[in-house]
Amino acid sequence: MTIFDKIIAGQIPCSKVYEDAHVFAFLDNSPLSEGHTLVVPRQARAHLHELDAEVGAALGRALVVISRAIVAATGCGEYNVLQNNGATAHQAVMHVHFHIIPKPSSASGLGISWPAGKLDPAKAAGLAAQIAAAIAR
Amino acid sequence: MTIFDKIIAGQIPCSKVYEDAHVFAFLDNSPLSEGHTLVVPRQARAHLHELDAEVGAALGRALVVISRAIVAATGCGEYNVLQNNGATAHQAVMHVHFHIIPKPSSASGLGISWPAGKLDPAKAAGLAAQIAAAIAR
Repeated sequence: MTIFDKIIAGQIPCSKVYEDAHVFAFLDNSPLSEGHTLVVPRQARAHLHELDAEVGAALGRALVVISRAIVAATGCGEYNVLQNNGATAHQAVMHVHFHIIPKPSSASGLGISWPAGKLDPAKAAGLAAQIAAAIAR
Repeated sequence: MTIFDKIIAGQIPCSKVYEDAHVFAFLDNSPLSEGHTLVVPRQARAHLHELDAEVGAALGRALVVISRAIVAATGCGEYNVLQNNGATAHQAVMHVHFHIIPKPSSASGLGISWPAGKLDPAKAAGLAAQIAAAIAR
């Protein structure tokens, strides 16, 4: 049981923007920018890969619909969508949540560092095959 | 027309991990960590809010299925899912793409800076109502 269960149940107030059978969305209480919104499944799972696939589908649909509305309401057409899994990956509340974070300027919103490497061609084929096989299972 | 259209069309090789009617996924050529994967809609749109809602649903479903397979194949249960919209928001290829980026340690994978503010209660209700109204339109 996390704070998101209580928000969804109406036990803790929030600034709600959307809800449907699978999804609940509200303004983040500690926003990185105006319009920063959390999109949360009703299904209480810590990590994205633990959700039912149909819940993932409902979240993906809601991300399109809600981001369109945030762009319309804020007038800001640039934004980041971020979903963190695990404490090392910066997850604070252990219930799946997507952030939609408007990026009105380079100095505001989400900051990212991108220490990119190079895909090793010798390893890539094997790794891709392993992932594809895991999907097929 | 971006490089992703050519990859989806098979004109540029990739390390493919998944495809269905709406979605195509492959290893990122400049990975932040082992297993870094791009999940791309066949629908060629620059920004998430420009996609058809059903394409968003297909992406959300694929994110669950593919992240589960990446966790299985890499043995790393922590990861970030990131989708950037607009050059200011760090988008490099102007065709929607979700990154799934394993986070095997705090020193690898995606780096984030999080300059959080505080939601202004006086403004929050109005902003949430504006976004909800835009969704209802």
